[in-house]
Amino acid sequence: MQLVQFGPLGKEKPGLLTSSGARKDLSSVFDRYDREFFQSGGLGRLAELSGALDTYPDVAEDVRWGAPIARPGKVVCIGLNYADHATESGMPIPEEPIIFFKAANTVVGPYDDVLIPRKSEKTDWEVELGVVIGKEARYLESVEDAAAHIAGYCISHDVSERHFQLERGGQWVKGKSCDTFNPLGPFLATSDEVANVNDLAMLLDVNGERMQTGNTRTMIFDPHYLVYYLSQFMTLEAGDLLSTGTPPGVGLGMKPPRFLKSGDAIKLSIAGLGEQRQVCKNA
Amino acid sequence: MQLVQFGPLGKEKPGLLTSSGARKDLSSVFDRYDREFFQSGGLGRLAELSGALDTYPDVAEDVRWGAPIARPGKVVCIGLNYADHATESGMPIPEEPIIFFKAANTVVGPYDDVLIPRKSEKTDWEVELGVVIGKEARYLESVEDAAAHIAGYCISHDVSERHFQLERGGQWVKGKSCDTFNPLGPFLATSDEVANVNDLAMLLDVNGERMQTGNTRTMIFDPHYLVYYLSQFMTLEAGDLLSTGTPPGVGLGMKPPRFLKSGDAIKLSIAGLGEQRQVCKNA
Repeated sequence: MQLVQFGPLGKEKPGLLTSSGARKDLSSVFDRYDREFFQSGGLGRLAELSGALDTYPDVAEDVRWGAPIARPGKVVCIGLNYADHATESGMPIPEEPIIFFKAANTVVGPYDDVLIPRKSEKTDWEVELGVVIGKEARYLESVEDAAAHIAGYCISHDVSERHFQLERGGQWVKGKSCDTFNPLGPFLATSDEVANVNDLAMLLDVNGERMQTGNTRTMIFDPHYLVYYLSQFMTLEAGDLLSTGTPPGVGLGMKPPRFLKSGDAIKLSIAGLGEQRQVCKNA
Repeated sequence: MQLVQFGPLGKEKPGLLTSSGARKDLSSVFDRYDREFFQSGGLGRLAELSGALDTYPDVAEDVRWGAPIARPGKVVCIGLNYADHATESGMPIPEEPIIFFKAANTVVGPYDDVLIPRKSEKTDWEVELGVVIGKEARYLESVEDAAAHIAGYCISHDVSERHFQLERGGQWVKGKSCDTFNPLGPFLATSDEVANVNDLAMLLDVNGERMQTGNTRTMIFDPHYLVYYLSQFMTLEAGDLLSTGTPPGVGLGMKPPRFLKSGDAIKLSIAGLGEQRQVCKNA
């Protein structure tokens, strides 16, 4: 299944994409795709009605695409998780996953504008595979246990302000939590839709120029390991979002570095997970 | 006013403390002290009824004290924000606030058990002044504007696992987000109740032994400045929690270092903000 949400920011309603790409409005059945939905087995109820989608109304084409899930309880990000990106950044390959958080109120829809923060010098792009937690995970006993705790996958754009992140003191979060810094979607593909999550091509273009070309196969720590690992340090709750790191080609790694400015158009895609498009505007 | 919440974890109801220390049940008027409550002017409605508290039922004494606010949208913490604690840690005084996040699902009540994480080697204490955002703050123009965005103050216990935080790779969040790592309360004192937030004595005892003795007057960046500063990097939402750093006396800074173990009893207090008590148990 491919879950979508639609409607104004903060008031999104739930739906499903049909095989022909139509959005079906399921707000008569569910409130939203949030912690309660996933934790209470909402995906099972969704599967039951997915055979009779014709009986639900279409969402009008001009209705905004929201993030495919409600605002997560937390957004956990993994740093330097692609061997080729770590090399590009001149950083050693991490021995353990590098974890940081993004503010959850950065999550917006896949086609919303990306706001360049005021006084930004170095707003940068990062295409990432997003993992949505389907069931609370706490002290998982093995990597094999992780699959049962994953609802599915989506594109997660981990927009980053490198000056704030790296040159303003302290921890990375300062450059990761600006408004609109986490476009998500366009849809959440349930795990069964993704044949091999460890072999997904990823692309990111800015103004039609290819910047990032990657594949999840060069991840250092794969999604199942990450869910297992994180659960040793914190309780992952249903509806939480995990962004699993970015492949090579970020602006910071270019010689000379390149960054986003108002008017720039960004396009992101991951095989099987659709495509995002954003235009940059000044905050 | 002194806001409290009571009842089982995750299902807390709102109330007010009377001047005689009784808890009044206001669940007939409000759902909970969350973003919607604060942003929509709930404190004003609370003030209107606070003169007639007698007409509301008492909360039974044996009912659990929850955190005084609903789960925050985000928990923003400030590192090394006391000049004397920075010295103790052998760290330079920060030129700008050091920001990190804690997972919001760490927030528990002021008397709940603190769980020592599995494989923990170095679980440590940190008494902190908590600031609760009362109204959305985004790109505030001056420090003077911050006061209007602060709902009030409370004790925030920023429990930290130093091995996870500092010796397991990457960012601090790994040692800050374990279950139960943020006891909050017992009450939220509205700003008008706190005569001078920059002169509050702070204490923390472990098993009756005084560990931390501090005062908010040695803060490097005070609460109003922090709200102003943070609003330049991220939108602070009503109901968000800001933990403003800890004074000297954490276990990591002792020679030799001392850490928490199952059975240890912790007591925290801040002048005018009451007292917390926790017992440590193994997760």
